[in-house]
Amino acid sequence: MRQSERCWLSQASFAPASDQATATWHNQSMSTLRYSDTPITMQPKWNADGLIPAIAQDIATGEVLMMAWMNEEALRLTLAEKRTVYWSRSRQSLWRKGETSGNVQHLVAARLDCDGDTVLLQVNQIGGGACHTGRRSCFFYEPDRQDWVLGESERE
Amino acid sequence: MRQSERCWLSQASFAPASDQATATWHNQSMSTLRYSDTPITMQPKWNADGLIPAIAQDIATGEVLMMAWMNEEALRLTLAEKRTVYWSRSRQSLWRKGETSGNVQHLVAARLDCDGDTVLLQVNQIGGGACHTGRRSCFFYEPDRQDWVLGESERE
Repeated sequence: MRQSERCWLSQASFAPASDQATATWHNQSMSTLRYSDTPITMQPKWNADGLIPAIAQDIATGEVLMMAWMNEEALRLTLAEKRTVYWSRSRQSLWRKGETSGNVQHLVAARLDCDGDTVLLQVNQIGGGACHTGRRSCFFYEPDRQDWVLGESERE
Repeated sequence: MRQSERCWLSQASFAPASDQATATWHNQSMSTLRYSDTPITMQPKWNADGLIPAIAQDIATGEVLMMAWMNEEALRLTLAEKRTVYWSRSRQSLWRKGETSGNVQHLVAARLDCDGDTVLLQVNQIGGGACHTGRRSCFFYEPDRQDWVLGESERE
């Protein structure tokens, strides 16, 4: 197996995948690769407001915790301080995640995507969770006909 | 253990977490919850262009595959057809993921986040991968001083 056919982060970084999932992964990865078309370097592409979306993922469980925005300074500080620093669009200021709540996100790995317009941050989430509601993840509304609703399991 | 202290999707949907990760999860989830503050319903918040960011995650491995954008029609079609349909900002048209490549994403679960401005889609990724480069995931550039670079393991 070539290195390039493996997960981009070591499987050991995630919760272990089942054998079946791993086998499927490798079979799929061996088809029609166009790796050589890929530029060697990439720069973040900032939107009209100078921001880029950043996805935070729990590296222990794989769960997607939240999506927030970063300006150039926030991304630079995140990489330098090894903890997530976002840009609060509502407050128009830097937002050191967990500064008041204690729910800091320690950065383990960062990746920029193929066209440079989204960042993925793999983190160790400290404290109760990433969400301001106290939940582990911000993604908890389920589709239900016209609405998105709080699932039964998410109600007190 | 209350339902609300559990992962928002069944652990069985993901690759199994290690016992240690699961224990950490539950301990953290028991602190300072503010579940009762949470609205029962939520609506997607479209940006100035009528779009919302959508994160696609491989439900078998937990890997974050890509981030793309949806307009109202794309999100409606995604939920109705149980496969991802995005809005291509470059082509200004609906983009049925995998229509030409065969790399369709079958939708397993969709979640809207706490403030309604991001969608998470958990999918079964068919074919070689989500990325136009042939890679499984679009997130493969690593930070390296001033640049983001293609890791050694990602080169042909």
